[in-house]
Amino acid sequence: MNFYKDNDDLRYYAEEAIDWGLLTELSEYRLGEDPEGFANAEEARTFYLEILEMFGEVVAEQVAPRIPSIEDEALRIEDGEVVEPAATREIFALFRELGLFGLPVPRELGGMNAPMVSYFLTAELLARADVSTMTHYGFHAGIAMAMLVYSLDEKTTRFDRETRTLLSTRWEDDIRKIVAGEAWGSMDITEPDAGSDMAAMRATARRDEDGNWFVSGQKIYITSGHGQYHIVIARSEPDREGLDALSLFLVRAWEDTPEGRRRHVVIDRVEEKLGHHGSATCALSYEDAPAELIGKRGEGFRGMLVLMNNARIGVGFECIGLAECALRIAREYAAERRSMGKSIDRHEMIADYLEEMQTDIQAMRALAVHCAVHEERHRKRRLWLDHLPPSDEETRRAWEREEEESRAISRNLTPLLKYYAAEKAVEIAQRAIQILGGAGYIREYGAEKLLRDAMVMPIYEGTSQIQSLMAMKDHLMGMLKDPKAFLARVAEARWQSRFAPDPLGRRVARLRSSALDAQRTLLMRTAADKVRAVRHKPLDQWADAFLKQWNPKRDFAFAMLHAERFTRILVDAAVAERFWAQAQEHPHRREVLERWLERAEPRVRFLEDEIRNTGERLLARLAEGSAASEAAE
Amino acid sequence: MNFYKDNDDLRYYAEEAIDWGLLTELSEYRLGEDPEGFANAEEARTFYLEILEMFGEVVAEQVAPRIPSIEDEALRIEDGEVVEPAATREIFALFRELGLFGLPVPRELGGMNAPMVSYFLTAELLARADVSTMTHYGFHAGIAMAMLVYSLDEKTTRFDRETRTLLSTRWEDDIRKIVAGEAWGSMDITEPDAGSDMAAMRATARRDEDGNWFVSGQKIYITSGHGQYHIVIARSEPDREGLDALSLFLVRAWEDTPEGRRRHVVIDRVEEKLGHHGSATCALSYEDAPAELIGKRGEGFRGMLVLMNNARIGVGFECIGLAECALRIAREYAAERRSMGKSIDRHEMIADYLEEMQTDIQAMRALAVHCAVHEERHRKRRLWLDHLPPSDEETRRAWEREEEESRAISRNLTPLLKYYAAEKAVEIAQRAIQILGGAGYIREYGAEKLLRDAMVMPIYEGTSQIQSLMAMKDHLMGMLKDPKAFLARVAEARWQSRFAPDPLGRRVARLRSSALDAQRTLLMRTAADKVRAVRHKPLDQWADAFLKQWNPKRDFAFAMLHAERFTRILVDAAVAERFWAQAQEHPHRREVLERWLERAEPRVRFLEDEIRNTGERLLARLAEGSAASEAAE
Repeated sequence: MNFYKDNDDLRYYAEEAIDWGLLTELSEYRLGEDPEGFANAEEARTFYLEILEMFGEVVAEQVAPRIPSIEDEALRIEDGEVVEPAATREIFALFRELGLFGLPVPRELGGMNAPMVSYFLTAELLARADVSTMTHYGFHAGIAMAMLVYSLDEKTTRFDRETRTLLSTRWEDDIRKIVAGEAWGSMDITEPDAGSDMAAMRATARRDEDGNWFVSGQKIYITSGHGQYHIVIARSEPDREGLDALSLFLVRAWEDTPEGRRRHVVIDRVEEKLGHHGSATCALSYEDAPAELIGKRGEGFRGMLVLMNNARIGVGFECIGLAECALRIAREYAAERRSMGKSIDRHEMIADYLEEMQTDIQAMRALAVHCAVHEERHRKRRLWLDHLPPSDEETRRAWEREEEESRAISRNLTPLLKYYAAEKAVEIAQRAIQILGGAGYIREYGAEKLLRDAMVMPIYEGTSQIQSLMAMKDHLMGMLKDPKAFLARVAEARWQSRFAPDPLGRRVARLRSSALDAQRTLLMRTAADKVRAVRHKPLDQWADAFLKQWNPKRDFAFAMLHAERFTRILVDAAVAERFWAQAQEHPHRREVLERWLERAEPRVRFLEDEIRNTGERLLARLAEGSAASEAAE
Repeated sequence: MNFYKDNDDLRYYAEEAIDWGLLTELSEYRLGEDPEGFANAEEARTFYLEILEMFGEVVAEQVAPRIPSIEDEALRIEDGEVVEPAATREIFALFRELGLFGLPVPRELGGMNAPMVSYFLTAELLARADVSTMTHYGFHAGIAMAMLVYSLDEKTTRFDRETRTLLSTRWEDDIRKIVAGEAWGSMDITEPDAGSDMAAMRATARRDEDGNWFVSGQKIYITSGHGQYHIVIARSEPDREGLDALSLFLVRAWEDTPEGRRRHVVIDRVEEKLGHHGSATCALSYEDAPAELIGKRGEGFRGMLVLMNNARIGVGFECIGLAECALRIAREYAAERRSMGKSIDRHEMIADYLEEMQTDIQAMRALAVHCAVHEERHRKRRLWLDHLPPSDEETRRAWEREEEESRAISRNLTPLLKYYAAEKAVEIAQRAIQILGGAGYIREYGAEKLLRDAMVMPIYEGTSQIQSLMAMKDHLMGMLKDPKAFLARVAEARWQSRFAPDPLGRRVARLRSSALDAQRTLLMRTAADKVRAVRHKPLDQWADAFLKQWNPKRDFAFAMLHAERFTRILVDAAVAERFWAQAQEHPHRREVLERWLERAEPRVRFLEDEIRNTGERLLARLAEGSAASEAAE
């Protein structure tokens, strides 16, 4: 068994679609010059594919068979330390042996310097065996890379421009320790009374006279929070309001002193969860824990976003792996199980479910890979620009354009990917149970575990609702900032939907057009009165007219209500664009595009219908409630 | 706490909508004459409401607090017998003490003779605390009533027509034992290789020379299968084909002999399930287990349907209880939890979810109560007609009409109820988890348990897919049998949708019209060629023309593919009809009708769109596959 080799859609990306040459150019500063590196891009590509193939086999042969025992042996706390299930310990020992923890980490820091995309693809492979194992795996390289990125951002990483070599970085020892598989870290954000609402955070950081920082407070739901490194967001600026009061810190959970280990971060408990049983979800306390400030004071929220962005893309791949596993369990069962004289995969409804599951997984992967590639291009091009800038102006401008475009794509797709992949992971796991029937409900077939594992996807790393709100706000603000560009896009989509030479191209353009229409409806209805007022003003004055008079809490109500529906339209359109782009390069991808369009088209019409025709009554009720509670205050 | 008193929508049915007078007339053969019975209908009504109020308090105060411990203490097998969790034993001891097991059982057999509807309402109340407890509760009175119904059907129950008293019934001792809380039973249908496909069943029954029956074979997924009474379906007619080879048997699991208990039904294992931890799901073996034939040989399938029909209605109420619990957990949490300066139930998306959950629960209850009332009217009126027929012809005809109409309503609504309630139970439990966020994913808040419990609803007692197929086939066959009546209904709905005086009435008629249109589309597309052929024939010849030339396996493909979508349209329309009927009697129900219509209308448009515009490609692929596999054979 090999989870890479048996997966044609994944192989399509690895072997046809991904431009490894470009990613190699961005990742290998000294391509052909470094005796430890690759001679050329082709050699690099071969290596990346070998990693995937090797990983696919290790996961299928060595990881997957160990997973069932994780369900039998619960994680527990002993003497204040988390004890992982034996299978988890074995799997991570194996990863250590294979040196997998430093996959995307620069060679100078002990890693393999592989593109982040290849790392994300290994995450998908691992998630197909077990998402909790994948999550914990992710909190190794993910945290190491975060440390490097933070150090690069605050300019505490030094490069030799001549030899294009990384000379030193602030948390070098820590990164090496993670790469060696001797440590990992966590992102400590959520608090008992502050989830998505970061401004409500209460953990504090204080600075003593010598400039040393200390963090105090509590965090909950901290995945892999039993590790050594904690990236903690805390309130450090008592004289500032809201998000500006927050800074980011690195807290080491313990110190090994001659008298033994001294804990600065106490594990209060591990949660008993519905699923994810191989992953410790910790409640933590800090009492004056020594901390290092990351970046600038008051910029903690910004720093957290960097980390969360990658984590969200990671969840996308996690969901794909889980869904892939669910589809395969269901498909295999349905091919075996007979009813009414034929295998049940030949029954129309079951065939329909299976096809939809497959199509949705392909859609998730299309979004995820594109998003990951552009996130990587944005980050790595930025790094070149900051640390290894080109000598000629023209190249610099081209790089800046590339960086900016890729950033925009990643910013646009990340919430769509997180939203869609998480929702679909749940739905596909559920479908698998349904296809198995009674067998789906009992432990031995493994389907019920997938649903238990999937249920956290729409919750952690920013709920589905938060992703929707982000996507909606980004789109409406973008439209307000540049209404001319928006209208040009509308016109272009309309034109293409009628006159594009390829009928599939016309259908894709029609979806794009629907998404833009929905966006306009959202803005118009959100501010019906104001729109009337600005109607006759030039487009470029809209933004001012809107934003000055708005009470965003109340006036955004219509768009907030429909944010999720709008996000689903955006996903349907974005996936169609992806498949269409693929089909233009690789005609065999027309087939998946057609499958997608057939299901997406009525869905988009439905969502538009709901946005246009529902919700007024609910909003009126909420407004009444608000008015009443404001009057009471 | 009282789960009845705090539930306004449930109270609406109990206190306003249900015609207890009619049900009393049907249930109390000697109203005003029996010194142990009620003096009049009003007294009966008061008693039924008292039962609900008492039950609501017992469940809230005594059952619900005991449930969490069921999750800690797993059911297990010891020396071949199931050991239930301590909490389950305590709860059932309490029910015994309160004498609740005979609620719907006739007074002559030790019961309270309450209407089945009141029994179903207690099931809802109990399910709000725990569905596994409710299920097990259901396998007491449910099996007692089945024994009575089977005996009535086979005419082994005797009545004194003069005094309208039940004199004796075939399984009287067994029924009394169940009523006393000393025994319960199960429905033993599913086998390792036969789930929905009953014709594939392999358990056999043989008859010895003395006419005694013995059952051998295996059954799986038998809920409450650790009880004494087993209603088993088995192959008794080796010379017949398909369903006609099956008969129904009563098997007693054990005999208590002077040498101790001798088991005829062996419990091979209890399944480790995702949820329903208070309910034993057993795998059973019979080896020449002594059995009593129920009814006639070869009519086992028909007999099973009687039992399943009630069980399906029971699942409807079970789902309502579960969903009610989920809604309340979510609502309470959302009212407490604050984010961005207000409680999250004031955030638009969460408010939207909560309102939809509430509306859907009200819809489930509207279907369930109507379906249960008519199932009861049908059964009990049949009983009067068979055993206590009226002397005048006119009354007899009126009763026959009533019986027939009620049977049609129940037959129509049962699959819709089972389908819809089960799907919504899952969705609502999921929503509750999502609203709780991280808290939803961990054990202590109780939301995750609800999803685990809900996941079996669309699977047991006939999967959602089976319900859809039944609903679809019933509708298409009905249309073929009486196309004139169908066209009259179409015309009537069209007219009403334009000219009904009340705008809500018009909207309801429009949904009805959509459902009829969908039905027609389904038939037309299912047999496009044949429809063309019969087009010019009189409507009443359609059925013949259709059915004679059809290969139902292949020709039904289009309708099979869209059966679930069609069923959802039927549900949306049927619920609207219910609320509309209620609103005409009780104007305060207009509000829920409006809420329903707002969400149902775009949904129905979407489903129609999907039926019209998707699936051809998939069907072509399946047809190709079928042709290929037939060619290979």
